[in-house]
Amino acid sequence: MPPAHPVVRKVYLDLPQPSLKDNTADLDRLKKQVRQTLAIENLLVPFALIPQWVSLLRSSAYRVTASVSLAPPIPRLIDVEAGDTSSRLFGLAVDLGTTRLAYQLWDLKEGRLLDETGSDNPQIRYGADILTRIHRAGTPEGLQGLKEAVIGEINRVTQTLCQVHNLSPREILAVTVAGNTTMTHLFLGLDPSSICREPYIPKINSLDPLTAQELGLDLHPRAWAYVFPNVGSYLGGDVLAGILHSGLYQQEGLSLLVDVGTNAEVVLGNAEWLIGCAGAAGPALEGGVARMGMTAAEGAIDRVRIDPRTQELTYTVIGGGRPVGICGSGLIDLTAELFTAGIIDLRGKLNRKKAGRRWTETDGQPAFLVVPAEETAHGQAIVLSQVDLDVLLRSKAAMYTILTTLTQTVGYDLKDIERFYVAGAFGNHIDPRRAVILGMLPDLPLERYIPLGNTSLKGAADVLLDAGKLAEVKKIAERITYLEMNVNQDFMNRFSAARFIPHTDPSLFPSVPLNRD
Amino acid sequence: MPPAHPVVRKVYLDLPQPSLKDNTADLDRLKKQVRQTLAIENLLVPFALIPQWVSLLRSSAYRVTASVSLAPPIPRLIDVEAGDTSSRLFGLAVDLGTTRLAYQLWDLKEGRLLDETGSDNPQIRYGADILTRIHRAGTPEGLQGLKEAVIGEINRVTQTLCQVHNLSPREILAVTVAGNTTMTHLFLGLDPSSICREPYIPKINSLDPLTAQELGLDLHPRAWAYVFPNVGSYLGGDVLAGILHSGLYQQEGLSLLVDVGTNAEVVLGNAEWLIGCAGAAGPALEGGVARMGMTAAEGAIDRVRIDPRTQELTYTVIGGGRPVGICGSGLIDLTAELFTAGIIDLRGKLNRKKAGRRWTETDGQPAFLVVPAEETAHGQAIVLSQVDLDVLLRSKAAMYTILTTLTQTVGYDLKDIERFYVAGAFGNHIDPRRAVILGMLPDLPLERYIPLGNTSLKGAADVLLDAGKLAEVKKIAERITYLEMNVNQDFMNRFSAARFIPHTDPSLFPSVPLNRD
Repeated sequence: MPPAHPVVRKVYLDLPQPSLKDNTADLDRLKKQVRQTLAIENLLVPFALIPQWVSLLRSSAYRVTASVSLAPPIPRLIDVEAGDTSSRLFGLAVDLGTTRLAYQLWDLKEGRLLDETGSDNPQIRYGADILTRIHRAGTPEGLQGLKEAVIGEINRVTQTLCQVHNLSPREILAVTVAGNTTMTHLFLGLDPSSICREPYIPKINSLDPLTAQELGLDLHPRAWAYVFPNVGSYLGGDVLAGILHSGLYQQEGLSLLVDVGTNAEVVLGNAEWLIGCAGAAGPALEGGVARMGMTAAEGAIDRVRIDPRTQELTYTVIGGGRPVGICGSGLIDLTAELFTAGIIDLRGKLNRKKAGRRWTETDGQPAFLVVPAEETAHGQAIVLSQVDLDVLLRSKAAMYTILTTLTQTVGYDLKDIERFYVAGAFGNHIDPRRAVILGMLPDLPLERYIPLGNTSLKGAADVLLDAGKLAEVKKIAERITYLEMNVNQDFMNRFSAARFIPHTDPSLFPSVPLNRD
Repeated sequence: MPPAHPVVRKVYLDLPQPSLKDNTADLDRLKKQVRQTLAIENLLVPFALIPQWVSLLRSSAYRVTASVSLAPPIPRLIDVEAGDTSSRLFGLAVDLGTTRLAYQLWDLKEGRLLDETGSDNPQIRYGADILTRIHRAGTPEGLQGLKEAVIGEINRVTQTLCQVHNLSPREILAVTVAGNTTMTHLFLGLDPSSICREPYIPKINSLDPLTAQELGLDLHPRAWAYVFPNVGSYLGGDVLAGILHSGLYQQEGLSLLVDVGTNAEVVLGNAEWLIGCAGAAGPALEGGVARMGMTAAEGAIDRVRIDPRTQELTYTVIGGGRPVGICGSGLIDLTAELFTAGIIDLRGKLNRKKAGRRWTETDGQPAFLVVPAEETAHGQAIVLSQVDLDVLLRSKAAMYTILTTLTQTVGYDLKDIERFYVAGAFGNHIDPRRAVILGMLPDLPLERYIPLGNTSLKGAADVLLDAGKLAEVKKIAERITYLEMNVNQDFMNRFSAARFIPHTDPSLFPSVPLNRD
């Protein structure tokens, strides 16, 4: 269905010819008609293009297509083309992930998603983790290199997308970009060093609308470009996009959104208030820490079941082939199933006897054999070591502690959460029941868990399709409070209690049977 | 007195240092404080400058001066400087005359006029009259040359003004420019050819605010630049500036503004309505046609008296030295005095007997000797030939006919005009009584004639000093109606009747004694 209020519009104009009775100036004639058609008061026109456009007006017999960005604070004329090109109107949404970049290409005339794809963030070659990149950005060349890496990659992927869909990058008239605060700084070429040093100040939170050219993106040079604002060093545009897409900021009851990326970012709130926090709970849950861990991509084990009677282990692999590793949701499944089967105890310690013939060792550590070498894609066994388990339990404990702390800070209980949105690839793959058994997520009725996919990308696309969402983003940014998660004694006590499976206090997890071993 | 609402402002900011309690991002910290101080909602920041400005913020310990343009549609950050530079805030107003450029340099902090000057419009070397220049602008090189000539001249004069007043052109943060429609097109590098061809369409009437850099002006590159809008091909920004400065658009009673330049531009109206027209009445009145005619500059005879008893002729010279020629007001004085002394008759014919020893001939034409050769600066006699007189009477008749036609078109009589504003150098020098005797201006009580000087330049300066005037200009442009002055039989009849001194119908000029000869 054609969107009612896309952020860019094309208007075909068959303007009245000038006459002695209507001697409106050429450009004013164009502007007047555009303003009337789009019901807008103002329309900014870039000065440098005026000679070209007025000459085009005359050579096209006053039949032209005007492209306009409708974004606040003020509508802007993007281009004037001869004849009627109004059916060609495209937009690009980009999620700047630390590890992966994700893209959606939209037909904004029809409101149709043409394509969605992803590519590795090439900044990884400057450093896999964000701190290394911030360090690298400390020199002008480093900063420039990081910026160019990500811009170049977006340009490369866009070029490919356009070829596939038989359009020119110049026909993309709007681009929206969401990322965490550091990724946003690097994308903009702003030194992010102050983000990770007390008092943790970003260089900028909120940008005015830009053009693609100003950003270095090879789209229409004057394409409207929007970079989601940040709220602070640890609450970035990706989270705002997520809040927007989830709609939790408009809802009556209490909702929570958790996005597990490099950090776990958590937002709690309703139509009245919003509070957010971020904490280092992520890497293990994303699959980035375990020896055989990987992100939720092709070849990753994403589901594991252990038959409670036969102890037989089955699994599914993303893409269907032989497994390469195990992703976050696979790890959570595996650990929860190991616990239910009694192969690990409530401290997460492997029980050699219960593990049976799957007991093995790796680097001198006890380990559990998940997939024997002969069944994997690379001929190496996939194992879960005691160290991996310990890391995972720390991560799940951190997650549960963050959720508890945030909720209690505003005087609520985890049980009060009516909708629990889980964002990210993680959210799409995770089995909430297994995460509850593990004690990572609270013991809520399962229907309250709502996977949303890549909310950063989807929120970015929402803005393309509805200019009204821009004001919503602004309101969200103004309303949200950032809770600095102080790692004090209270936090550490909660954290220690949460390291057990599911928890030292089983009354918090009434649905999880006690492990009798 | 410091102006209350100059169009650009400087704000010295001693920003709170970032802390864990206030981790607003650097640029947002700056924007927030500026917005609060100036009570504005939005503040656009040019993207390319952000890295430099945030780094300056930190190196200046968050003590900086922000320069802001407050002009609609949206305030814009012009610059950020270390420390307190708020006392240095300057603006430039420019009148783009076809013959002369005029400038005012203002201290916008104090609201003080620092200097006013003028220089020849160097486009004259491409053609003295506007039609020749339009023709020259028909090629891209011609257009470029005309544009560069005027921009270069403004830059040259600005440089000099800045040296004299010990400031840097970079400290000029606002510039306003008013000119007729053709001059505005040439200044902007827009081909004016359509202005003089039916249906007389300008390329553009109303521009969005620009920067000095976009125009090619060597001021602060991001100085706010405003070009007065045109209303049509023959009613330009200079007239709008004049209406603004005169205030006639706000007045209860009927007012008229006449600006005699290359064309005579006339505006009639009050707080309810405005109507304007333009006609070719100017050159003779400006002094551009008579053999010894010149503009009202040093060496021009601007006042002439003939003793009715002794026939002795006396005159004053602008600048006080020996005369070089005679300007428009001098011509009007001279002709009116010749008429009163009976030396010319009501048809403007020289009476050889009455002229006495001042009777002479030039190019085989009867002529009147105004200043003998030995009294002039160049050693040539200054004479007024019968041809000059005929041209002048046609001009004065054209002027009176335009005034009559415009006034009658809206159902009024010339006697209803309560304030008669006379703009231009012409307005400063003209003796209304002599213009009435000549029948060029209507026979109104003399106190109704109000000379205003260069209203285009003064209106341009008004906007520098009060951002609120921008909305007024817009309203004026929207309200004014342009009357196409059709040279039909009615007009020609009126014109013929007005070629007599003062008029074929003496009842229109009751205060002028009938010439008995």
